[in-house]
Amino acid sequence: MRLSRYFLPILRETPKEAEIVSHRLMLRAGMIRQEAAGIYALLPLGLRVVNKINAIIREEQNRAGAIELLMPTVQSADLWRESGRYDDYGKEMLRIKDRQEREMLYGPTNEEMITEIFRAYVRSYKDLPLNLYHIQWKFRDEIRPRFGLMRGREFLMKDAYSFDLDQAGAQHSYNKMFVAYLRTFARLGLTAIPMVADTGPIGGNLSHEFIILASTGESEVFCHRDYLSMAPPSAGTDFDDKAGLQAVVDQWTSLYAATEEKHDKAAFDALPADKQVSARGIEVGHIFYFGTKYSTPMKALVAGPDGSLIPVHGGSYGIGPTRVAGAAIEASHDEAGIIWPEAIAPFKVGLINLKPGDSAVDAACGDLYLQLGAKGIDVLLDDTDERPGGKFAKMDLIGLPWQIIVGPKSLAEGKVEVKNRRTGERQLLTPSDALVLVG
Amino acid sequence: MRLSRYFLPILRETPKEAEIVSHRLMLRAGMIRQEAAGIYALLPLGLRVVNKINAIIREEQNRAGAIELLMPTVQSADLWRESGRYDDYGKEMLRIKDRQEREMLYGPTNEEMITEIFRAYVRSYKDLPLNLYHIQWKFRDEIRPRFGLMRGREFLMKDAYSFDLDQAGAQHSYNKMFVAYLRTFARLGLTAIPMVADTGPIGGNLSHEFIILASTGESEVFCHRDYLSMAPPSAGTDFDDKAGLQAVVDQWTSLYAATEEKHDKAAFDALPADKQVSARGIEVGHIFYFGTKYSTPMKALVAGPDGSLIPVHGGSYGIGPTRVAGAAIEASHDEAGIIWPEAIAPFKVGLINLKPGDSAVDAACGDLYLQLGAKGIDVLLDDTDERPGGKFAKMDLIGLPWQIIVGPKSLAEGKVEVKNRRTGERQLLTPSDALVLVG
Repeated sequence: MRLSRYFLPILRETPKEAEIVSHRLMLRAGMIRQEAAGIYALLPLGLRVVNKINAIIREEQNRAGAIELLMPTVQSADLWRESGRYDDYGKEMLRIKDRQEREMLYGPTNEEMITEIFRAYVRSYKDLPLNLYHIQWKFRDEIRPRFGLMRGREFLMKDAYSFDLDQAGAQHSYNKMFVAYLRTFARLGLTAIPMVADTGPIGGNLSHEFIILASTGESEVFCHRDYLSMAPPSAGTDFDDKAGLQAVVDQWTSLYAATEEKHDKAAFDALPADKQVSARGIEVGHIFYFGTKYSTPMKALVAGPDGSLIPVHGGSYGIGPTRVAGAAIEASHDEAGIIWPEAIAPFKVGLINLKPGDSAVDAACGDLYLQLGAKGIDVLLDDTDERPGGKFAKMDLIGLPWQIIVGPKSLAEGKVEVKNRRTGERQLLTPSDALVLVG
Repeated sequence: MRLSRYFLPILRETPKEAEIVSHRLMLRAGMIRQEAAGIYALLPLGLRVVNKINAIIREEQNRAGAIELLMPTVQSADLWRESGRYDDYGKEMLRIKDRQEREMLYGPTNEEMITEIFRAYVRSYKDLPLNLYHIQWKFRDEIRPRFGLMRGREFLMKDAYSFDLDQAGAQHSYNKMFVAYLRTFARLGLTAIPMVADTGPIGGNLSHEFIILASTGESEVFCHRDYLSMAPPSAGTDFDDKAGLQAVVDQWTSLYAATEEKHDKAAFDALPADKQVSARGIEVGHIFYFGTKYSTPMKALVAGPDGSLIPVHGGSYGIGPTRVAGAAIEASHDEAGIIWPEAIAPFKVGLINLKPGDSAVDAACGDLYLQLGAKGIDVLLDDTDERPGGKFAKMDLIGLPWQIIVGPKSLAEGKVEVKNRRTGERQLLTPSDALVLVG
């Protein structure tokens, strides 16, 4: 992408309303714009990040055997009356009346709707297990929306729903998502720790939150230090191997890790002092096993091997891609701006033309731009007339992993400068060596 | 994808509520499920089709220089008061009050919001032209939702918005989208004809609908027969070449083509009788030039070359991907089911294992499945226990372009059967020849 033809509205001033760094940096870097309280437009740069997050989530959901569909945002109130949650859900649910005065709502989550879809089609235990997911906009009418995408009212969520014949099957489905989440967050460049958690309005008695540590976290969390260096499960993980998968989950749940609500002070204090981590945490994922909480009232029954009708055991599994974008910035930034993990950077390379109009510099930039594109590398070419200082500041602010800086002086010696955004390291290289380094 | 691990809920009965063939076939083929009047879930097969449609739309929007962002679904009523459309829009607008009693709405379109984004950031004529688009859910509270995805209440729309300094610039932006739409529909496998159209609630005085002919079309349309055989603009089209682009648009607007509202009987009757086409049509795209209709009341002004503030000239450009999925079926089906254009087929190949459990057949299917995957071809392997007749009927119903049928008898002679869904032609080939044919 050529910046002269892109839409990247950088703010010079730090917006006053933004309380936390990710919100400030997303506004300044032209990633988001607030359209109403807790409701944001994703500007082109922000959308690119969210799309990359979605793609990784999707790959790992598919790898774990989940199947993607797409449910609508607007739901019928009657569906929620069946589960008993319509009245329970309170004011966070955005309630709507259509022109026929039918009671509708903007889905805050989809347990009821997916249960309706399941019961409409699935009749036999032979069709189980089944895990269906979607990535769709949700709305929760928070009384105090804040922190930008981290706690918006309209937000994107990947939510998966598993259906099994019994608790043992459901545990395996839970483990699949547990492992998929470990892999997902690792690929997103985040160190997320699964912590025993409250189930809240989703219900059930087994739940883990995936938490990343950041000083701006919304709640206090407690865990064993070894979690910070555990290697995530490999891409070769066999999700059908029940025992193998259980062993991975056992490894990741054997050490102490709990959210504030589930904190056991005595157990935590019993850890060696140098292994105790008490910190602020940001929830980036949450998984639940809730048994027959929805299938029983909503009559999601399948015929078992003996022909008897059995309510299915369910779980649900959520990641907020828009929230992950904010969390990634909370975990990785400096004074100059964002430092994206490579996997979710909006572009991998920022190519800076220090002197547009200089034919040699233009030619070198054009050539690098084409070669990067041919290698499948996303590149943003700053071909604008802005002064070098402004270009450097902008590239640092938007946090692309690599910068390639092309100016007349070094180019006269056949060199370009390559800067690593994270380390700050700079090297003078030939263009072809630069291509190798950033590739 | 292995069907035994997929979620493809085929209906045996033809649903009574479905009035038109695309609605019936989408329900029967397990592509969609109605969740409320005019509100559908896209089941996995349906989502795959819509994703393929979206990908083509996106490529052609990007090729024409439009930039993707993503605006939220819920909007503030105040924004629509600025343009004067809040009261005008009537009951089709889904109006919402949040917990603070603020008036909100579920966006039926985004002229106001994109104008708000534009005016927040763009100050100078030097930043023009600009074309921003998104693909997002919209809601129009139709009094009589029907025809499945063709006329739903919650529906997906790609809407682009162009901003220019003057009418000449806006005409060029309009022409870019005009040509992009011709390319888009041709790639989608649809013969879409641009017809002079009414502007309705969007406003303005220049508008074209892109219409495909189908007996179940919602309105009557009239056009010159030569449109049915015109070649679409090539991939090499230079969108910056104003004169060249205008010539393409001139070619596509020089012959008679009009919707019912804009029909000029005298002009139509003057065509040679064998060139007169009067038929039912389905609108699949609609583009508008509306000048300063939004920029003037909403103060979307830029400084011109002489420093004076000028309201920008705008246009908007919509395609409904969910509607396109239905229109494609209306245009291409037979007694047995859907016949997908290859570009938007949910899978390119259906691989039928006629005898699961037969080790030679299983091995041949496994091998073909891997080789098709390695070639990047989407394949659905029917590895279920269903009887052959059921498998054939299902594959015909879901309409994948190619079927490869593997049974013990032909396999003993080293052959598999390849069926072309559209022509019905069948050939006995070696597996490697089959791979070449469907590749």
